[in-house]
Amino acid sequence: MEIERISVSIPEGANVIAGQTHFIKTVEDLYEVFTNSVPGIKFGIAFCEASQDRLIRWDGNDEGLTGAAVEAAKSVGAGHFFIAFIREAFPINVLPAIKACPEICGIFCATANPVDLLVAVDGDRRGVVGVLDGESPLGVETEEDQARRKKFLRDIGYKR
Amino acid sequence: MEIERISVSIPEGANVIAGQTHFIKTVEDLYEVFTNSVPGIKFGIAFCEASQDRLIRWDGNDEGLTGAAVEAAKSVGAGHFFIAFIREAFPINVLPAIKACPEICGIFCATANPVDLLVAVDGDRRGVVGVLDGESPLGVETEEDQARRKKFLRDIGYKR
Amino acid sequence: MEIERISVSIPEGANVIAGQTHFIKTVEDLYEVFTNSVPGIKFGIAFCEASQDRLIRWDGNDEGLTGAAVEAAKSVGAGHFFIAFIREAFPINVLPAIKACPEICGIFCATANPVDLLVAVDGDRRGVVGVLDGESPLGVETEEDQARRKKFLRDIGYKR
Amino acid sequence: MEIERISVSIPEGANVIAGQTHFIKTVEDLYEVFTNSVPGIKFGIAFCEASQDRLIRWDGNDEGLTGAAVEAAKSVGAGHFFIAFIREAFPINVLPAIKACPEICGIFCATANPVDLLVAVDGDRRGVVGVLDGESPLGVETEEDQARRKKFLRDIGYKR
Amino acid sequence: MEIERISVSIPEGANVIAGQTHFIKTVEDLYEVFTNSVPGIKFGIAFCEASQDRLIRWDGNDEGLTGAAVEAAKSVGAGHFFIAFIREAFPINVLPAIKACPEICGIFCATANPVDLLVAVDGDRRGVVGVLDGESPLGVETEEDQARRKKFLRDIGYKR
Amino acid sequence: MEIERISVSIPEGANVIAGQTHFIKTVEDLYEVFTNSVPGIKFGIAFCEASQDRLIRWDGNDEGLTGAAVEAAKSVGAGHFFIAFIREAFPINVLPAIKACPEICGIFCATANPVDLLVAVDGDRRGVVGVLDGESPLGVETEEDQARRKKFLRDIGYKR
Repeated sequence: MEIERISVSIPEGANVIAGQTHFIKTVEDLYEVFTNSVPGIKFGIAFCEASQDRLIRWDGNDEGLTGAAVEAAKSVGAGHFFIAFIREAFPINVLPAIKACPEICGIFCATANPVDLLVAVDGDRRGVVGVLDGESPLGVETEEDQARRKKFLRDIGYKR
Repeated sequence: MEIERISVSIPEGANVIAGQTHFIKTVEDLYEVFTNSVPGIKFGIAFCEASQDRLIRWDGNDEGLTGAAVEAAKSVGAGHFFIAFIREAFPINVLPAIKACPEICGIFCATANPVDLLVAVDGDRRGVVGVLDGESPLGVETEEDQARRKKFLRDIGYKR
Repeated sequence: MEIERISVSIPEGANVIAGQTHFIKTVEDLYEVFTNSVPGIKFGIAFCEASQDRLIRWDGNDEGLTGAAVEAAKSVGAGHFFIAFIREAFPINVLPAIKACPEICGIFCATANPVDLLVAVDGDRRGVVGVLDGESPLGVETEEDQARRKKFLRDIGYKR
Repeated sequence: MEIERISVSIPEGANVIAGQTHFIKTVEDLYEVFTNSVPGIKFGIAFCEASQDRLIRWDGNDEGLTGAAVEAAKSVGAGHFFIAFIREAFPINVLPAIKACPEICGIFCATANPVDLLVAVDGDRRGVVGVLDGESPLGVETEEDQARRKKFLRDIGYKR
Repeated sequence: MEIERISVSIPEGANVIAGQTHFIKTVEDLYEVFTNSVPGIKFGIAFCEASQDRLIRWDGNDEGLTGAAVEAAKSVGAGHFFIAFIREAFPINVLPAIKACPEICGIFCATANPVDLLVAVDGDRRGVVGVLDGESPLGVETEEDQARRKKFLRDIGYKR
Repeated sequence: MEIERISVSIPEGANVIAGQTHFIKTVEDLYEVFTNSVPGIKFGIAFCEASQDRLIRWDGNDEGLTGAAVEAAKSVGAGHFFIAFIREAFPINVLPAIKACPEICGIFCATANPVDLLVAVDGDRRGVVGVLDGESPLGVETEEDQARRKKFLRDIGYKR
């Protein structure tokens, strides 16, 4: 089984969320998940229909992000795969609602880092087996690093 | 690390749901998830116990679906893997309750398409690394395709 | 794409939970998930920061478990990967809250079995593609095995 | 503060679910909750808009159930109250998705029993304060009653 | 509509959780919610069946707590009401799973304080309309009180 | 049992969310729920501690909203009651995370309408029994009203 490494090109300032789902309704449901979760969010969504018409289904409220999602879905090309780019919001704002979306199976990654999707290829059938999300760690944090981490999370208001 | 491609034989008219869990209680809990979610649902469940007796645990209310689940679990053979076939219901009806089942880790796929599970093999240890769910997309939907998609979802009553 | 098999050393009597997340807040949030879920739980958490400082972030209330989590995170080294060891509690007690944690994408496994994580390697970028969780099944349970399974789950009080 | 007792007329064979929400989107979202949860479900929904047009908003796929929901909403008349009748499905099949519906605050009751809603009245402002759901208990179950209860739940397949 | 104030007698060291549900399965499901959530938890559960046999259904793994739950259910006597006492665990450990239990509508209160349930009475029909949970506040916290509150939550490990 | 009607003064442009909880941790947890759900959200939170110090606990990132929450909590004065005002966000954006907050029992209302809380009073013990949320309906929507409703929800992007 050959495994291809597909680099995902993330539009500037955007985050990517990619996962596995099982139904073309995903495109409309994610549209509503995004607009219902964060006022002013910008996003683009693409989904690889795995049978019948086998089209890349797409939606969004930002042309650049939607185009990027379609391009990424094309290059991954795995059945029932979906990918979304968001701006003016962060994955933490929308992941709970995505995970609760009835037809979504799971999430491969959510990140602003450079991401490569690892795709198993068997003729015209493809499947995501994992992600390279950013880079490997360089060391272990010290207690001083921990203090900085905690201060940072409180400075941005995410922890109290 | 060798990766085997295991074709899952889906009984006619059925959908398959496969995932990773961590406890033999999964078999009984999924039984209740299915009967509590959709009146009249038919299903079969199988789970690969990963230590001690190392048996394929199974349950269901339809002999054909249950037998198919056992056969699929045998051919995948990955520790703590589960698989279920359902009829008279769709994955969208049961996935929320499966994802909420306390001992279930995640879902690899939910589909009515031909599915191959990609299984890493290391002696008598096996692990699912991904799925080939249906086939790759052939193109990108046009606005006309979108109109048809939306109409279809409204015709079947799934979107309003 | 090379796939390494990384054996996770599980401290005696502990369970391991490993998954993919997207934010350093995971470390503090999992700390609270554990203490809020089970009185008296012991745990250690480690997370691979995937950009900027690229440190293994860690926390816990048990030195041994925390040290083991850091060692496991080091050996896996995949961006946005997290791993936790727990004692005086079981995965079933904490998985619902972990899955609900906003920044967590998904769970690879939860187990007390010997576990190997399968890690794709591309220079200094690494990604988990699957797990070997325990061993493959040896056979299919009989109705007598089923009766024993059900009795066991009722004897420990997990099913009624 | 005067409290009125409003009897809800439940169509034959139907169950009622009533609760508090905060948005006219509830009507469409509940429509999708119902159709996405159980194939073949029949239902009617009504919601009391609490400002602006102040209309009873309604939807459904069964005329009788929808009309009954509108009548019940009229007689309750409390701002942001909703009520739904379902048939060919049971509350247990749909309550998880209703509780997860983003704009829904809470559920007052779900039942096939005769139900009275207790409504506080202050001029043209009304609010539900509670429900009379069926009747008070006549005694305490014996161990024999418990055995029958458990057998019943297993006979209908809801418990395993 | 007469409203009775029913004092709930909480066994020493216990917490009470009371709510509205719609099915006798609640008794067994809550049993499993408790045992699956916290190892070593002690509990008693009672539920007011609202039609047919109209019995107080009960279960538990501690005789004192179970007896107290039955007594409380008797004195409240509202259709589809449930009440549980827990020890060796806190409401925060079990509330998420209770709220996710499919047939449960909502929770009136969870507390270790003296609690009175406010019960509307109409002949042999009764319904909970609210709770008196502990006592009214005496003042507003100062910043010094806030510092103490935050320190307390960190000292017990609930916040990090 | 006397029932007082307590008018809540909602700051201009704000929405109110009120409910029942069981722990002082609510104040910090809601702080994090709000900041983690919507970038740029403004909010104030107050909670009525029901035993021991019996203080109104409060937090927020907007002085006006926080002051208003404290004033509302004072006038309601019910044990374990909480109230929050939000701006630059809507209840639909935050309710899912509030409902999932482990120590929160339930939500009485979420609204931008004038709200009165109905509070049962027994000496220095108080409990919310219901809400008057906006006003009663004036009529039943026509199909033309429905078309306008659907168009509105699509114009604001909440439905697709």
